[in-house]
Amino acid sequence: MLVPSFTAAQTSCRALEHVGVHMDSAALQVDLLLEADLRGRPSHGLMRLPRLVERICNGVLNPGATGQHQWRGNFLEVDGQNGLGPVVACSALDALAAASRQHGLALAAIRHNNHLGMLAWYAQRMAAQGLILIAASTSEALVHPWGGRRAMLGTNPLAIGIPIAGKPFILDMATSVVSMGQIHDHALRGQQIPAHWALDAQGQATTDAAAARQGSIAPFGEAKGYALGLALELLITCLAGSAIGTDVVGTLDSTQVCNKGDLFIVINPGERPDLARQLSGYLDAVRGSGGSDQTVSVPGDRAMQVRASNLESGITLADDVWRQIQRMAGRQTQSTEQQA
Amino acid sequence: MLVPSFTAAQTSCRALEHVGVHMDSAALQVDLLLEADLRGRPSHGLMRLPRLVERICNGVLNPGATGQHQWRGNFLEVDGQNGLGPVVACSALDALAAASRQHGLALAAIRHNNHLGMLAWYAQRMAAQGLILIAASTSEALVHPWGGRRAMLGTNPLAIGIPIAGKPFILDMATSVVSMGQIHDHALRGQQIPAHWALDAQGQATTDAAAARQGSIAPFGEAKGYALGLALELLITCLAGSAIGTDVVGTLDSTQVCNKGDLFIVINPGERPDLARQLSGYLDAVRGSGGSDQTVSVPGDRAMQVRASNLESGITLADDVWRQIQRMAGRQTQSTEQQA
Repeated sequence: MLVPSFTAAQTSCRALEHVGVHMDSAALQVDLLLEADLRGRPSHGLMRLPRLVERICNGVLNPGATGQHQWRGNFLEVDGQNGLGPVVACSALDALAAASRQHGLALAAIRHNNHLGMLAWYAQRMAAQGLILIAASTSEALVHPWGGRRAMLGTNPLAIGIPIAGKPFILDMATSVVSMGQIHDHALRGQQIPAHWALDAQGQATTDAAAARQGSIAPFGEAKGYALGLALELLITCLAGSAIGTDVVGTLDSTQVCNKGDLFIVINPGERPDLARQLSGYLDAVRGSGGSDQTVSVPGDRAMQVRASNLESGITLADDVWRQIQRMAGRQTQSTEQQA
Repeated sequence: MLVPSFTAAQTSCRALEHVGVHMDSAALQVDLLLEADLRGRPSHGLMRLPRLVERICNGVLNPGATGQHQWRGNFLEVDGQNGLGPVVACSALDALAAASRQHGLALAAIRHNNHLGMLAWYAQRMAAQGLILIAASTSEALVHPWGGRRAMLGTNPLAIGIPIAGKPFILDMATSVVSMGQIHDHALRGQQIPAHWALDAQGQATTDAAAARQGSIAPFGEAKGYALGLALELLITCLAGSAIGTDVVGTLDSTQVCNKGDLFIVINPGERPDLARQLSGYLDAVRGSGGSDQTVSVPGDRAMQVRASNLESGITLADDVWRQIQRMAGRQTQSTEQQA
């Protein structure tokens, strides 16, 4: 179903406000999810909203929390107090932005926070302030080690955002070869998956998407991608004091407190004349490196095209997702009445 | 030729001292190169020493420089003054170690520095002090963008080192699918290379190693590996004020001042009871995730096995490399006499 983005945003905010989320927090959370839909990444879009509402109703997500901050130099330890992912994260990022302006850089390690969603959104936010962001997060174990037969790693996304005069460069990628969302999508459509995407529950390579859902996803880039995902798993756990590997829960379900970790490093690049021209000139040369018959993409190029088109046309939501959000926006839930 | 590591180290130090390198600096540089040979990575080993000596003789490497430091909060800007890679880097890392103990973390961006060599060596050094290191470096353009037909990116290695009670985890990987050294090696042996490794000078996929030497190497992990390498290229350039893409020179030749950039972030993880047990227990579970018939490697596992064996047996050096080093150790060069 095609829904105008303004309508989708307004209705979604109301759904969150009905379960006790403050207007400003609801706006942040919805902006994050909507942005993913606009960029053509529905797996991180509004389809996640009903689960957030359920998590609030189930008492494993605290809609009023913004996180407890404890500075150690320019190292910010954050207890997310089970708040909304982007609410806790943005509160930490605001603090990091101020600290990095004064001290060059600052880092936040966050535990007890809910799902961050699309990391590019945070990178965009920092780039708009002229700041570099390196962001990473762990998640439930879905990815097998290279050579391994069962899920031991999160999809552990990594983002790097670099402000370039109004047109930032933003890398945002999972360290798995695909997302579990794409495998679910293939299973729903009855489509086969490529043989290198996943293993079944017995640890054997499979092209059966339904079998892959019970198994594990491959890391991207074979041994090197596995090594990077593993490094992020250890780094984040080490800094945030979060759970690791198969101990991570609460990123996919509606009933468990989320115990993964998030990491943000904000760097103030300072001012360097001609830097923007150097970097954007280079990126244009990269785009032109395919010869006359092939355009090379820079990360973010395609997403921005999709975004422009979706802003015009509206976003595509599954019928049942949109109905569920509308229903949630239309009535008080039992647990909110209890809270109120 | 098998050479005992002690003999290789002693002779190599003498070769550097003969061209004006201070004893301590020579020891650092040789320890770095030797460590690569010990770990079975000869492309980053003592085979690089003759070029360093040539660079000193040609006046593009300043054997006495340790780098000029300028702090901006906890952001250290370093002008490497064309010094030896590990000498400039270790001087910066010592400063970062002190700053990170006081402020939680610190960053150095270095320009005008020579080749860093194997990044794992730096990560090991920081881990021995209980500190986390994130390190990355640009290099001459050898890698084509995903979908591109010519070299636009350095092999841009990334290292992440995490101290774990005496047995650190160390990721150290190039963002290319292989090193140019491996392609040269295949060419020398007259062996074909796999079709996905490289393009020839016309931008066509090739299995001819000699043709690939004139062309470009593929990024690892297809589009995602390319995106990561590109992010590092931009990040380092942005922070270090170094050259970018095809403008980078001096990492492979003997005659040009090196204008790439290096980035180090040192983080003090603080103390968390039981962390070492949590992390090493997890890594053991990862090693065991291959089932009964397959061992899964954690980054560094194989290198450490090779190292133990090479420490016993000695390192393997190409005959002409070892003869060259011995010759350089045995006589004063003309340019040193001029310097003296």
